[in-house]
Amino acid sequence: MNPQAAPTFATTVVLRKPYLLFLGEARHFSRAKTAFGLRDWAPEACIAQLSLPACEVSLELPEMTPAQAAEKGAGSLLIGIAPIGGQVAASWIPSLFAGIEAGLDIVSGLHSPLSNIPGLADAAAARGVRLIDVRKPPENLPVGSGRKRSGLRLLTVGTDCALGKKYTALALTRALQTKGIAADFRASGQTGIMIAGSGIPLDSVVSDFVAGAAECLSPDAAAHHWDIVEGQGSLFHPAYAGVTLGLIHGSQPDAMVLCHDPHRTHIWGSPDYPTPSLKIAIEQYLQAARLTNPKARMVGISFNSSALDDEQRARLFAETEAELGLPCFDPLKTSLDAVIARMLAA
Amino acid sequence: MNPQAAPTFATTVVLRKPYLLFLGEARHFSRAKTAFGLRDWAPEACIAQLSLPACEVSLELPEMTPAQAAEKGAGSLLIGIAPIGGQVAASWIPSLFAGIEAGLDIVSGLHSPLSNIPGLADAAAARGVRLIDVRKPPENLPVGSGRKRSGLRLLTVGTDCALGKKYTALALTRALQTKGIAADFRASGQTGIMIAGSGIPLDSVVSDFVAGAAECLSPDAAAHHWDIVEGQGSLFHPAYAGVTLGLIHGSQPDAMVLCHDPHRTHIWGSPDYPTPSLKIAIEQYLQAARLTNPKARMVGISFNSSALDDEQRARLFAETEAELGLPCFDPLKTSLDAVIARMLAA
Repeated sequence: MNPQAAPTFATTVVLRKPYLLFLGEARHFSRAKTAFGLRDWAPEACIAQLSLPACEVSLELPEMTPAQAAEKGAGSLLIGIAPIGGQVAASWIPSLFAGIEAGLDIVSGLHSPLSNIPGLADAAAARGVRLIDVRKPPENLPVGSGRKRSGLRLLTVGTDCALGKKYTALALTRALQTKGIAADFRASGQTGIMIAGSGIPLDSVVSDFVAGAAECLSPDAAAHHWDIVEGQGSLFHPAYAGVTLGLIHGSQPDAMVLCHDPHRTHIWGSPDYPTPSLKIAIEQYLQAARLTNPKARMVGISFNSSALDDEQRARLFAETEAELGLPCFDPLKTSLDAVIARMLAA
Repeated sequence: MNPQAAPTFATTVVLRKPYLLFLGEARHFSRAKTAFGLRDWAPEACIAQLSLPACEVSLELPEMTPAQAAEKGAGSLLIGIAPIGGQVAASWIPSLFAGIEAGLDIVSGLHSPLSNIPGLADAAAARGVRLIDVRKPPENLPVGSGRKRSGLRLLTVGTDCALGKKYTALALTRALQTKGIAADFRASGQTGIMIAGSGIPLDSVVSDFVAGAAECLSPDAAAHHWDIVEGQGSLFHPAYAGVTLGLIHGSQPDAMVLCHDPHRTHIWGSPDYPTPSLKIAIEQYLQAARLTNPKARMVGISFNSSALDDEQRARLFAETEAELGLPCFDPLKTSLDAVIARMLAA
């Protein structure tokens, strides 16, 4: 969100912006979600696109070779597509070598490490550029200390996984910055890291170090500065609640926003697990957060309301506000003024 | 506890018992806690000891060379000492090669991997034996499914770390087996894995897979069989609560025992964090466990009461039982009959 403020501490992944976004031979928007997410949420970091002849999608950015992009100041060639099976296609490989030759770092969120591509690591070392697998956490993360840090923090949490915690955090950061309030988005997942240019992929951290990693993610800051921390998982998910709890404890949030999809009746991938009520979720998130920050407050509900029309949405928000006394919003549809007012009213 | 019942699924570390316990040049009991713990809790797995001339401690087991121990049926040479700094001393190395030459696996819980010792991995491969670093989790752990498994499970939990969760689980397993009740100790930490001969070092698992690893640790079993799962960390520890929660969710405990040290006023290593009351701890552990097992019950309190005399202990137990209605015991000092009766009364 703010390349000038990129943290320099060694315990986060730090990327070199701006990016040349590699689209390969993507035939459909759905294969290039990473690239579109970057264009939408970090437009200042997207200098150009690079597509192969069979590519059928476009970001409507200038088309450049790696050499041209480097000339214009690009720092990295970023793989913006998710291939079927998660592997790098043979057709992409010349573009990756061309990126290295042009002096760009290569950034990937794919499952297989870039160093598995024969010769790529040697070429990068010879040219003095980096191969960065965004899924790989930094080395030497500490265990959590529980020490209270300066500055203010908001963490997005959810009744389930995959219902808008990242976009809610991005939208809050953008809205705060627009109002002139010092704020940074702190990324805990790979797409978020690419958008922010730095962060820690928390779900890939060894479990003993999750809270410590979350402490590194939002370090000491100025008294009125807000870190807006991207949430992970859900306390109500039978597989991922441990990651969520470590992130809560390490983030020490002063404020939390609860993200919810009103059409989700069961936990994602776990049909035997009903989603919790908002009331129960609020209680349990506050209880968890108050271990490391006794002043933690819930300040709003972020709805993924894309399936509702305006009248249905207005009714849902009014009913929920009446029941819970918290401002409701949809970060892609409605104003964030009320939640930000609540957040700033310490 | 029960070498005949060693699980064969590939998602746990499985050791070859019995052990030749290597004592090196230990000068004091405190450096050889692993070896003494094994002698006390897995005596049937300890066939002999191997000490170097400068060694000043003894397990009072027969002294054997690796070749002699192999002749008597040993499966592994196990490093039973914790050197200062966590590194293998040069003086030990000939004994490790001798163990390999005798056909023994080499088992280590040290920080630095055995394969860092020059030539050791090649020697092991040539002889067809394994170098096993007990801190290293198995590959290919799944994410948690939340699926309810057959059989019964008890998990030990704590108001803090390092106050008796492993010994409580071991004592409960031994007491159940003595009564003829089918039970297995399930180890989640390295010393426990050495005692059990199998298990998963949960604190070394990547955070996304902790609940899945805990599911693998206590697989489907006969309807009345008890798995007694060694707890890790504490929900009240600012660094490790995420590991604890993942272990709770994956273990799906039917019963829990809360471990407590009445002299511990603050969380281990975190002086700003007071230990919770037993009442609060019981409530929060039950809340956490009921996500994946709505029938979870707390069945007793295990006290580390070594600093109390008999009268003080009796008074503490009577007061706690009156307050909480749960049987109290010290696994190293008092009978486990009451907690086992509560555990079996479904």
